[in-house]
Amino acid sequence: MLDPWRSRYAARTDGMIASEVRALFAVAARPEVVSLAGGMPNVAALPLETVSAVMADLVLQQGTVALQYGSAQGVRSLRESICDVMALEGITAAPDDVVVTSGSQQALDLVARIFLDPGDTVVTEAPTYVTAINTFAAYQARIAHVPMDGDGVVPEALADAFARLHAQGRAPKLFYTVPTFQNPAGVTLSAARRHQVLEVCRRAGVLILEDNPYGLLRYDGEPVRALRADAARGHDVVYLGSFSKTFAAGLRVGWALAPAAVRDKLVLAAESAILSQSPFTQLAVDRYLRTEPWPDQIKVFREMYRERRDAMLDALTAHMPPGVTWTTPAGGFFVWATLPDGLDAKAMLPRATGARVAYVPGAGFFADGSGRTNMRLSFCYPPPERIREGVRRLGDVIAGEIALRETSASHVPRVTPGSLPAQNRRVRRR
Amino acid sequence: MLDPWRSRYAARTDGMIASEVRALFAVAARPEVVSLAGGMPNVAALPLETVSAVMADLVLQQGTVALQYGSAQGVRSLRESICDVMALEGITAAPDDVVVTSGSQQALDLVARIFLDPGDTVVTEAPTYVTAINTFAAYQARIAHVPMDGDGVVPEALADAFARLHAQGRAPKLFYTVPTFQNPAGVTLSAARRHQVLEVCRRAGVLILEDNPYGLLRYDGEPVRALRADAARGHDVVYLGSFSKTFAAGLRVGWALAPAAVRDKLVLAAESAILSQSPFTQLAVDRYLRTEPWPDQIKVFREMYRERRDAMLDALTAHMPPGVTWTTPAGGFFVWATLPDGLDAKAMLPRATGARVAYVPGAGFFADGSGRTNMRLSFCYPPPERIREGVRRLGDVIAGEIALRETSASHVPRVTPGSLPAQNRRVRRR
Repeated sequence: MLDPWRSRYAARTDGMIASEVRALFAVAARPEVVSLAGGMPNVAALPLETVSAVMADLVLQQGTVALQYGSAQGVRSLRESICDVMALEGITAAPDDVVVTSGSQQALDLVARIFLDPGDTVVTEAPTYVTAINTFAAYQARIAHVPMDGDGVVPEALADAFARLHAQGRAPKLFYTVPTFQNPAGVTLSAARRHQVLEVCRRAGVLILEDNPYGLLRYDGEPVRALRADAARGHDVVYLGSFSKTFAAGLRVGWALAPAAVRDKLVLAAESAILSQSPFTQLAVDRYLRTEPWPDQIKVFREMYRERRDAMLDALTAHMPPGVTWTTPAGGFFVWATLPDGLDAKAMLPRATGARVAYVPGAGFFADGSGRTNMRLSFCYPPPERIREGVRRLGDVIAGEIALRETSASHVPRVTPGSLPAQNRRVRRR
Repeated sequence: MLDPWRSRYAARTDGMIASEVRALFAVAARPEVVSLAGGMPNVAALPLETVSAVMADLVLQQGTVALQYGSAQGVRSLRESICDVMALEGITAAPDDVVVTSGSQQALDLVARIFLDPGDTVVTEAPTYVTAINTFAAYQARIAHVPMDGDGVVPEALADAFARLHAQGRAPKLFYTVPTFQNPAGVTLSAARRHQVLEVCRRAGVLILEDNPYGLLRYDGEPVRALRADAARGHDVVYLGSFSKTFAAGLRVGWALAPAAVRDKLVLAAESAILSQSPFTQLAVDRYLRTEPWPDQIKVFREMYRERRDAMLDALTAHMPPGVTWTTPAGGFFVWATLPDGLDAKAMLPRATGARVAYVPGAGFFADGSGRTNMRLSFCYPPPERIREGVRRLGDVIAGEIALRETSASHVPRVTPGSLPAQNRRVRRR
């Protein structure tokens, strides 16, 4: 049917595109398919009877507050608890500077809303979180990518990008980064580089948007401090956090920690967007944090996800054909794999789902058309034996593609700018 | 402290203004003050033990779904329940055309996001919902008001406004209306006028944005059908609904019913804004609707709010000085009062709060500076005896202001364009 309003949409609506990740979910959800696609936490590891009792008590004891409208900034006691959570990564913060949001996705949207005019530039890692790309696009912003290696974004490349953009009259508004267990690349910005990145941004006058949903899910190696923890001035970073991976994604509770003036604008923007985040889900998270042994739950998650990561890395070593490389995440949910030149992860996907394994092709994580040979492999959701089976199937599919390419006369190798380099020192080869 | 990012905000951020209604809440929340200001539903009338059990069962029986990420469009079974709710006001709809949102406020924001470019015009009633004004302003839209009388918006005035704006090259994108028990005016668009309004908008090619949070809270008179129920073409109206007044505001569950093409864009915009609304709160509402006697709960709300409305109307008749007029709502939460010319509701507010009564001055409900002699009086939250006491105090304050004006040589009467006319046939005088 013709859309009678098609001439009436806002210009920004052109930038709203269906996420390839989301579009995959229908296929990936088929029970016979091993999904290495989604980034869903394994909430089955939660103590559901305990959570049930927390919810029940909340209604009985604070029902008239939990079921009523709340403030746009969020419930005060939760903001206090959030400060305790951030302290685990070295951040000193006041509850007044926290804005509770509907998942950290809403925090990302609100930051974009208050900072981005059409045509503005945001600098991001290459690759970067797919929905961040979509959100910046929805505000008609342009994205400039900066390459990473196994130690995260390269500070010199970041400084060069800022200088180049400044010379072009495109001084960037924000540097958006997922510094720890990055989505999708799985790499972590090293401690040494964190100070460099802070300094590069400070000198260029670029606000850092630090997105840290996975920081507490470290499986080995030394903890690193949040960028926000070491910002020389607290107002150089807007920090985004979330309970989606450390408690329950379905409650949609995230937050922004922002300099006071930015916080004020975020609160106004939040009020205009949703009036207030649900007091019920905020109080549920707060009650859970205050009454239950949450650090023990984090340990449960860590051990479970570590086992899954190990299963994936072992299976990759066992089953990937020569020429395939991948990152070795010390935490989080994702491994980033690179196929030999000439293969196309997106074109290969129907063959993979036919072989009952799904992944996310890399192109969606770039704004510039890169990522053709890349794929994101998630180890968060399927149990270890399914991960091993899925990687085995994927190895077969890739081997088949390589064989096909080698027998094809039409093969033309191509360069894939922006993808993590194969000489990455944290990348295993086989 | 200086804000180092003050030169970096987006242009739209200038339009984000603190709601005067919200700013009042701190004063109005003092226990000695009778607040006729807020629009908070009286959630204490909910059966908290039942709600507690619903929440507990939800986690035990559907925890891994409720606590997990969901779809951006919303939980399917809730969308089915929402269609049943809308059928109560004559709407025939399919669950596929419903998008669940974080309160109807988010639906309003998403509609603005997909339709409004900077400089676009939205037509609204005068007065209109204060946060709608803020939301449209946050998208840099311009608002054109159309007057109402006791039967709601005047269709001829609406047609004139469309024609005038069209002639000025400002063809409006949307007509935003709260047709039933309007916030803040308390009036309802008559059944006869509904068809006229639909026809006027259809001819002008203006999409209707029908916001109907109060429709099921009717205290007397004949039910009217939603505008969406009688739209000749289903694609002429985007309908917004909410469980905030009929179940629990704190769960933040609302929805949009939209033509298929618009719905697709709303889903994309929702994903970019918040990924998904909370599956937990969606399933909680759905479970409550399906397992508990919700129609009985609506009756409880109706009887409670009817008693409060009657207390307010009786007290207004008993205590308001001559020259004060007000509307007589057949449902909803609000009475709209008009002071004699020369009085200023905003300037009077400190005197009122000093006398321990609060209201919302009318100016915030207009985008054009009108409403100086108006005030919104809410009867939803305080119990009847408090309402009577609050109105008595307010009557004394107004009488004092009138006396002051009559002894003041500097008094200059002024016209208050845009306010509901005193000859309004549903307005009582004394």
